[in-house]
Amino acid sequence: MQYIQLATKQESTLFDGFFAKFVHSERMTMTFVRIEAGKTLPEHSHPNEQITTVLEGSLELTIGGETVVVRSGEVVVIPPDALHSGKALTECRVIDVFAPHREDFKQKFS
Amino acid sequence: MQYIQLATKQESTLFDGFFAKFVHSERMTMTFVRIEAGKTLPEHSHPNEQITTVLEGSLELTIGGETVVVRSGEVVVIPPDALHSGKALTECRVIDVFAPHREDFKQKFS
Repeated sequence: MQYIQLATKQESTLFDGFFAKFVHSERMTMTFVRIEAGKTLPEHSHPNEQITTVLEGSLELTIGGETVVVRSGEVVVIPPDALHSGKALTECRVIDVFAPHREDFKQKFS
Repeated sequence: MQYIQLATKQESTLFDGFFAKFVHSERMTMTFVRIEAGKTLPEHSHPNEQITTVLEGSLELTIGGETVVVRSGEVVVIPPDALHSGKALTECRVIDVFAPHREDFKQKFS
């Protein structure tokens, strides 16, 4: 078992205005993300499936050409390899989960 | 892409005092769980790896014989097939993520 107190972890900068804490397990990576209002997520994709849950705020996401505003208490599933980009309409707190785990994040961020 | 508004979903009873909403993707199941204070999670295991994040409250978990109190902002990783049980020390709001997805939940709960 792993037991993680997020308050004791340092935030890492994922993109400009996107600050994340990471939990890596064997099969998943979970990121706890704080986003500053107005910041944009550059278009990108990855082979990992992703589930994004917005805890606080409003996050506009464009996934495979379709745009949706994801608000507190809302969830989107981003399929493997789907191009996605976004913009924080307000300050946001978001949880992203990936399967399989993000080996790229694991190498780069603790 | 799947877009889910949790507020529009019905809660299902997982165990006595454990009420859950589900998001099933291809590779993961994410459950948003509300637990009444004092309720217990019977010992069980599953082949799915699990990450439990406590959003609110205090949840005592015993995982593979080791007991930990998981509080708001804390996370535990439960390895595949690890026996686990628990008790809500207070009312709790918890997110559980499983990989691979919980086919048993998918059959039973929408």
